Amino acid sequence: MPHEVDEADAARIARFRPASGMETPRFSGIPSFMRLPVRDPAAAEGVEIGLVGIPFDGATTNRPGACLGPRAVREASTHTRAVNHSTGVAPYALAACADLGDVPVNPIDAAETCRRIEAFHAALRSQGIVPLSVGGDHLVSYPVLRALGAGRPLGLVHIDAHSDTDDSQYGGTRLTHGTPFRRAVEDGVLDPRRMVQIGIRGSLDSADERDWALAQGIRIVTLEEAVGRGLPETVAEARAVVGEGPAYLSFDIDALDPAYAPGTGTPEPGGFTTREALYLVRSLRGLDLVGADLVEVSPPLDAAGITALAGGTLLFEILCLLAEAVAARRGADRSSAD
Amino acid sequence: MPHEVDEADAARIARFRPASGMETPRFSGIPSFMRLPVRDPAAAEGVEIGLVGIPFDGATTNRPGACLGPRAVREASTHTRAVNHSTGVAPYALAACADLGDVPVNPIDAAETCRRIEAFHAALRSQGIVPLSVGGDHLVSYPVLRALGAGRPLGLVHIDAHSDTDDSQYGGTRLTHGTPFRRAVEDGVLDPRRMVQIGIRGSLDSADERDWALAQGIRIVTLEEAVGRGLPETVAEARAVVGEGPAYLSFDIDALDPAYAPGTGTPEPGGFTTREALYLVRSLRGLDLVGADLVEVSPPLDAAGITALAGGTLLFEILCLLAEAVAARRGADRSSAD
Amino acid sequence: MPHEVDEADAARIARFRPASGMETPRFSGIPSFMRLPVRDPAAAEGVEIGLVGIPFDGATTNRPGACLGPRAVREASTHTRAVNHSTGVAPYALAACADLGDVPVNPIDAAETCRRIEAFHAALRSQGIVPLSVGGDHLVSYPVLRALGAGRPLGLVHIDAHSDTDDSQYGGTRLTHGTPFRRAVEDGVLDPRRMVQIGIRGSLDSADERDWALAQGIRIVTLEEAVGRGLPETVAEARAVVGEGPAYLSFDIDALDPAYAPGTGTPEPGGFTTREALYLVRSLRGLDLVGADLVEVSPPLDAAGITALAGGTLLFEILCLLAEAVAARRGADRSSAD
Amino acid sequence: MPHEVDEADAARIARFRPASGMETPRFSGIPSFMRLPVRDPAAAEGVEIGLVGIPFDGATTNRPGACLGPRAVREASTHTRAVNHSTGVAPYALAACADLGDVPVNPIDAAETCRRIEAFHAALRSQGIVPLSVGGDHLVSYPVLRALGAGRPLGLVHIDAHSDTDDSQYGGTRLTHGTPFRRAVEDGVLDPRRMVQIGIRGSLDSADERDWALAQGIRIVTLEEAVGRGLPETVAEARAVVGEGPAYLSFDIDALDPAYAPGTGTPEPGGFTTREALYLVRSLRGLDLVGADLVEVSPPLDAAGITALAGGTLLFEILCLLAEAVAARRGADRSSAD
Amino acid sequence: MPHEVDEADAARIARFRPASGMETPRFSGIPSFMRLPVRDPAAAEGVEIGLVGIPFDGATTNRPGACLGPRAVREASTHTRAVNHSTGVAPYALAACADLGDVPVNPIDAAETCRRIEAFHAALRSQGIVPLSVGGDHLVSYPVLRALGAGRPLGLVHIDAHSDTDDSQYGGTRLTHGTPFRRAVEDGVLDPRRMVQIGIRGSLDSADERDWALAQGIRIVTLEEAVGRGLPETVAEARAVVGEGPAYLSFDIDALDPAYAPGTGTPEPGGFTTREALYLVRSLRGLDLVGADLVEVSPPLDAAGITALAGGTLLFEILCLLAEAVAARRGADRSSAD
Amino acid sequence: MPHEVDEADAARIARFRPASGMETPRFSGIPSFMRLPVRDPAAAEGVEIGLVGIPFDGATTNRPGACLGPRAVREASTHTRAVNHSTGVAPYALAACADLGDVPVNPIDAAETCRRIEAFHAALRSQGIVPLSVGGDHLVSYPVLRALGAGRPLGLVHIDAHSDTDDSQYGGTRLTHGTPFRRAVEDGVLDPRRMVQIGIRGSLDSADERDWALAQGIRIVTLEEAVGRGLPETVAEARAVVGEGPAYLSFDIDALDPAYAPGTGTPEPGGFTTREALYLVRSLRGLDLVGADLVEVSPPLDAAGITALAGGTLLFEILCLLAEAVAARRGADRSSAD
Repeated sequence: MPHEVDEADAARIARFRPASGMETPRFSGIPSFMRLPVRDPAAAEGVEIGLVGIPFDGATTNRPGACLGPRAVREASTHTRAVNHSTGVAPYALAACADLGDVPVNPIDAAETCRRIEAFHAALRSQGIVPLSVGGDHLVSYPVLRALGAGRPLGLVHIDAHSDTDDSQYGGTRLTHGTPFRRAVEDGVLDPRRMVQIGIRGSLDSADERDWALAQGIRIVTLEEAVGRGLPETVAEARAVVGEGPAYLSFDIDALDPAYAPGTGTPEPGGFTTREALYLVRSLRGLDLVGADLVEVSPPLDAAGITALAGGTLLFEILCLLAEAVAARRGADRSSAD
Repeated sequence: MPHEVDEADAARIARFRPASGMETPRFSGIPSFMRLPVRDPAAAEGVEIGLVGIPFDGATTNRPGACLGPRAVREASTHTRAVNHSTGVAPYALAACADLGDVPVNPIDAAETCRRIEAFHAALRSQGIVPLSVGGDHLVSYPVLRALGAGRPLGLVHIDAHSDTDDSQYGGTRLTHGTPFRRAVEDGVLDPRRMVQIGIRGSLDSADERDWALAQGIRIVTLEEAVGRGLPETVAEARAVVGEGPAYLSFDIDALDPAYAPGTGTPEPGGFTTREALYLVRSLRGLDLVGADLVEVSPPLDAAGITALAGGTLLFEILCLLAEAVAARRGADRSSAD
Repeated sequence: MPHEVDEADAARIARFRPASGMETPRFSGIPSFMRLPVRDPAAAEGVEIGLVGIPFDGATTNRPGACLGPRAVREASTHTRAVNHSTGVAPYALAACADLGDVPVNPIDAAETCRRIEAFHAALRSQGIVPLSVGGDHLVSYPVLRALGAGRPLGLVHIDAHSDTDDSQYGGTRLTHGTPFRRAVEDGVLDPRRMVQIGIRGSLDSADERDWALAQGIRIVTLEEAVGRGLPETVAEARAVVGEGPAYLSFDIDALDPAYAPGTGTPEPGGFTTREALYLVRSLRGLDLVGADLVEVSPPLDAAGITALAGGTLLFEILCLLAEAVAARRGADRSSAD
Repeated sequence: MPHEVDEADAARIARFRPASGMETPRFSGIPSFMRLPVRDPAAAEGVEIGLVGIPFDGATTNRPGACLGPRAVREASTHTRAVNHSTGVAPYALAACADLGDVPVNPIDAAETCRRIEAFHAALRSQGIVPLSVGGDHLVSYPVLRALGAGRPLGLVHIDAHSDTDDSQYGGTRLTHGTPFRRAVEDGVLDPRRMVQIGIRGSLDSADERDWALAQGIRIVTLEEAVGRGLPETVAEARAVVGEGPAYLSFDIDALDPAYAPGTGTPEPGGFTTREALYLVRSLRGLDLVGADLVEVSPPLDAAGITALAGGTLLFEILCLLAEAVAARRGADRSSAD
Repeated sequence: MPHEVDEADAARIARFRPASGMETPRFSGIPSFMRLPVRDPAAAEGVEIGLVGIPFDGATTNRPGACLGPRAVREASTHTRAVNHSTGVAPYALAACADLGDVPVNPIDAAETCRRIEAFHAALRSQGIVPLSVGGDHLVSYPVLRALGAGRPLGLVHIDAHSDTDDSQYGGTRLTHGTPFRRAVEDGVLDPRRMVQIGIRGSLDSADERDWALAQGIRIVTLEEAVGRGLPETVAEARAVVGEGPAYLSFDIDALDPAYAPGTGTPEPGGFTTREALYLVRSLRGLDLVGADLVEVSPPLDAAGITALAGGTLLFEILCLLAEAVAARRGADRSSAD
Repeated sequence: MPHEVDEADAARIARFRPASGMETPRFSGIPSFMRLPVRDPAAAEGVEIGLVGIPFDGATTNRPGACLGPRAVREASTHTRAVNHSTGVAPYALAACADLGDVPVNPIDAAETCRRIEAFHAALRSQGIVPLSVGGDHLVSYPVLRALGAGRPLGLVHIDAHSDTDDSQYGGTRLTHGTPFRRAVEDGVLDPRRMVQIGIRGSLDSADERDWALAQGIRIVTLEEAVGRGLPETVAEARAVVGEGPAYLSFDIDALDPAYAPGTGTPEPGGFTTREALYLVRSLRGLDLVGADLVEVSPPLDAAGITALAGGTLLFEILCLLAEAVAARRGADRSSAD
């Protein structure tokens, strides 16, 4: 069985358990992601999955506020508990997880911030830590992908209302939250034939906006197609597209309908429900994920915190995927070592 | 026909009609439940269904505010009208309904408040009044069940995100909003084999959290199972589990998705829509309900009052069930008297 | 092909393009509908579709605020772009669209305001401009219909939670937002046998409330029936009822569930999702629409602007229908002229 | 001493005590004004001061929502207690107070509603009940004044940002919330030489807007003058203007700065603080008040309920004035009877 | 008298009157600033004062949202009327005012946006149009000052919680909303000895943060000093510092206390009330203002729109200053021409 | 000079500096109090001032939510910087400060929670750490005072709208947020003759409510008296009452007016502005404070976060007092050691 954890690992992993709501209220304590221990990324021995905030929205072309996302998602994520009620996965028993704080961004300078994000995540990769990063606007996925995909173009499951494969805006600005995946493909850190985008919808600036993506071989599943065919079939195709190599999951909260996620800069009515979104994420079990992100939660635009709550709950669901992937790779390493 | 109302009853019942929005605006007048007449519970002759507020949230382990629920649901409920558009049921023509005010709670003392709630509802039972109680946190169901189930263990339809069958929290606290149904089963006022819980979801503190409930024979239908099988089948099974004996309906508003009910202390993304919830309640027509409650509406956590509105609308739907049950029992009494 | 646009038309139409979000941010500039050019209705040469605000809610019987709807929908509508991602329709390439400002209402006087609305829209009709009007409460549909249906009773697709065919309220008040379609049928500007109402739900003031409508031959599809049979079948019947003659589309935002549209005066839980509503509108392609409206968005009751956003997005979807209808009629005129 | 209450009166008065927050939480129970007993105005024997809601905003020319004011002020007023901490006045020991419900308004028809308001208050006057009325928009003061001032032109202390002495708007509409005091003076129910307006500010539609008021002899104290001279001097003059005859107090919540009262339709920055407003009201002790109102609280425009709270607290302060006036007149009657 | 307007001017000016709330409700129509006519800046003949939006917040170092400021202030400003109730100034009778739309910003690029702002305002200056600009974050003042102060270093009244004279942040970023006045002094477009900053408060990053400003000779009046000495004395000194040469007024909305202006990115408790702020602005009558701005209104952070309302009201007050300055200069030109 | 810090201390203290907003945005990083280092209270060597959260509101008799206060104040406090702009105090250069996390409360059990709070603070006292505690409701002050005042009855400056010296509510409940100071005096940990309460206001449940307090010799300064005499005189008396012995400062956020602090359970219009409150706190420099708290911030009741912001800013101001007191005592110890 892939997720068996041996005794030594279990002891190490046990040092990274979140505080339990059965002992102190979930609203108590400093709001780290999931109430996990906080570690300095420079002193993160033993950590296998690092939750990271990227509080940057300086590449936003619509309404701002995603720079405040990491704090709001941290707080909302303290609502989650230890065991996935649907899959039975207990992520904190499978892998050592910690909150590694935020990338030190420069809110005024997108290019400089990209460099910092890439360096931060490259350092994690060099320590064997799998990042689960919380934006911030969607541009932040680009430098993360540069760090994780360097030398190994990754597959991608991209759940979003927008394909974010624009070339530029405003007469030549190329680093915006509408361009990360085009930039990442251009840089060779994403393999477009192993990319699938799910939930795309909303009116377009021009009819040829999708042309580039399709020309690269990216598979775009519109919201209507995903729902029309049914989510099980959609997921099956997505898994086939991504295949068995190393892969990344990027979840833009505006994939959800504004009723479920009003707190985002570019909402598009007609989106996924959280029930559907949880199903989609859950169905990706078994992919060889080497990182993931959740982006575009904008707390000042939220109502009653439901967007941050949806984000925090999806984060737990994604963490379950990563914990299984980490445990699977650990198991595979052990097996191959035998 | 069970719901025939004879002339004398009709005259009595007619004294308890809510004010009509065709004559004065629904936003006018003192906001009693459904704009019904207000009666002192000690002087409630002729009343058959008593709507009762229980403004207590002192057993909440997550975010508070449900103590403010009764007022908000009262106000929202004035939006409802006289006839169920789907079933055609006209509850105020079937049974004499009144707002009986609030139980006099002690916000600091859960045990004392439980005693007061039980006494209040025992007095209603002794007058033959069927209570429709509005919390407050979910602990309030426990003393209500003690009053109504004393001497006759009740069946239960429990619609909720959480099974609320914990044993204790914080090192031994046994009266919390996570424990009412365990306490009620222990006290013998609920029959666990006639209990069904629908909509359960959300991550768990530990994998064995459901063990006690299942060991008692309680039927747990997770959200995923309910939706996967389809609601008609779910309801059919629920009706079979509860059977023909006296039964109770407890509706925790967090059964709804946070998009539909953000105003609650422990929201869980991925829940029911109001359309599904109305369907579920409506489908319980014919059960021998002796009481019901609606709990966990927390107005300070709400957005635009939609949680209170969902609560007030579900309250009307539940009231239709109770009115039919009252009329059916009245009819049966008459028949057996003949 | 019906939507071919010849060169001269294309040049004219090109003068009425909205500002593009690729050049300046969508949140910039004066918020006209869709960022379209603003024209005085008295100097609107070349315009084929006129977007019009009707900031009046003086006929509201429930919670007010719809008088502030036009501004909020204008702002939200600037979020839409140039091409329908689902149908591929590019409305601004098919017809010349402009924001014609607001009807000069009298907030205290419903009868006087009706006269002004009718005169405003009659003037548009005389110039061959198709109106897309944004309320305001639902009474505003009545004078619009009087202007557009004079001499040619129109068919109607009416998407709403309420049938709005009351006779009067408060002892004889006949001009309320609950009466427009009864008045319009009485005046002979609507053909009841070509009318369909979709999404009707919510408790009723009396069981015979629907009698008048049914007696006229109006087809009422309740929410439950629409969802039970499936939307494709519902739409097919609606198209059959309305048939080929000139028709009007009236969309009351409370057709949506309160989770999707909390910002409205008379919300009814259990309604359509935006995904369903967009499907419904989109499915009406090909009807011979001579006007349309979107009503009852009440910004002060909204949360996070999602109701205005749903309204603005539906407005774009309706505009696509009107643009195709305009282009089709233009094409037909040319053909018949040949 | 004027406020001595003899034994028989005390016994009667004691039947009208509000529920105490020391026994049940202030947030519990049906939210009548101040948690007072509710009486039908047709069966209000023994009542001396009647708190009345007037949920009408159909004469509003700016943002609506004041029709929802009575309910919000009722709820907020339950926060007040039994004794004025500053003056020591205990109103419920001085006079029998009750909540008499709402005037049955017609939200679509200002003229008809004025007739109903006048009739309602005339009936109270005929029973010797002093009304403390809660709007609603400011037009409602006009019919109240007609009822109370018929046959005896009243003095007026009018605290407001606007003088509300317009003649008409929109080409002849004469019943708006900007005209009540002009209408009342024209009808002879207010004595303009005994009228003072305090706190007037905000830009004007035309420079001569104040001419009519000044020509009648009304004393206008702008906000700047009131603050510049100091409130004690302002109040002293106000008392001198009104003099010893029967008088009325009308408090428009927009007298407060928007920071203190955002929830109103026509807010004007630069207004009174609540501390100043409480001082102003408190300083009017001893006037021979025969009625009072508080208007223009618009809950949908409020933030965190602070406007309703300010309203409810001012209502208590006004009630203290009325209770003293009632007790003083009762004492005077007894004295003169001796 | 300086503000006499001759007949020809009066006729021209009359073409730029805002719509009146006595004829159509203030909430109606497209929300241009003050309901003024909208003009393309390239076709603005006859305009003397141009209201301009600058929807840019890409230089914000704290919470964002000021890019949405221009629209919110536009909407709130439609609440203002034609005559200043305190000074009697009727700005639209003194000078031709128009809404010139927004500067075409690039939200991702501060340097490029500064160039565009400067070019836009330089073009206005070349046409003799006085700009009243609405941000956006405070960086936008820098390029405006470059345009207006080129060749003539301006005096400055700067009302703010922060002195915005930082050198750089984040290791060398020099264009932030904390640096505009340092940059402008360095560029020689502001004369530091004619600069006064009023209302400065809030904790400091380092004790020497003020050193640079003081070393330049800038007069800093802290909030405590301004209030301690009294506003009249503060204003007298400010007028003396600025003197008779051309001057600019920059008003950062965070000069107000968060109770009055919660909707801003860097609020500092303990600030001015709107009453004080209106007094401060009003007291600057007679300065030779050649432009002004109002910045840092962040609508997503606002509550009940009171910050935008304060902004819109202050904008009217500033417009009165500019209109008098324009009329005075016109008068002086005529006089010198005689 | 009392606040000289020698080299060894300075090195130790330097390890406890908050992150600077000049290097990373204030909205970044895990939101500890003031962005200070987080320490386990069991491993807090070198810490002199411990900021502590007490997330408990189970003793609230009005609206709840203060249990969520610590997190909201933590987040808002990250807005503060390093140097007090008014006094010049740089607290992090004077004393080693750290966030010690939250007391492990039991939300259902007030008595048990009091025991835990007392134990937590007694442990801090035994380590020589001065606590600055953030509630939670006002009951939490009682166990803190028991820990700090054991063996040395403390003086108290208590800034609040309510005197919180009730005996009991609901028929005998003695541990509520209305009783802490009565309990503390009864237990001998407060010296009533060294107690002053400032800002008391709001209607009273009974006229004798203040009798007990006054009988103990507690000095009550009502809001009206404080403002009437002027704050300088009020503070002078307060300092005289408290004198030179060890003292405690308890700040209830409802001392502020609801316009400044809507987010609290028992708001009372007519309170202090933040400017006044900052003045009051600042004026207490030199008292021998051994601890302090800030209580009753209820985030769910807040608007735009201004209550938490006021709380966080006052917390910084209080921290400046404590840092000076710590430095003064350290200096005195050194002096006496010499």
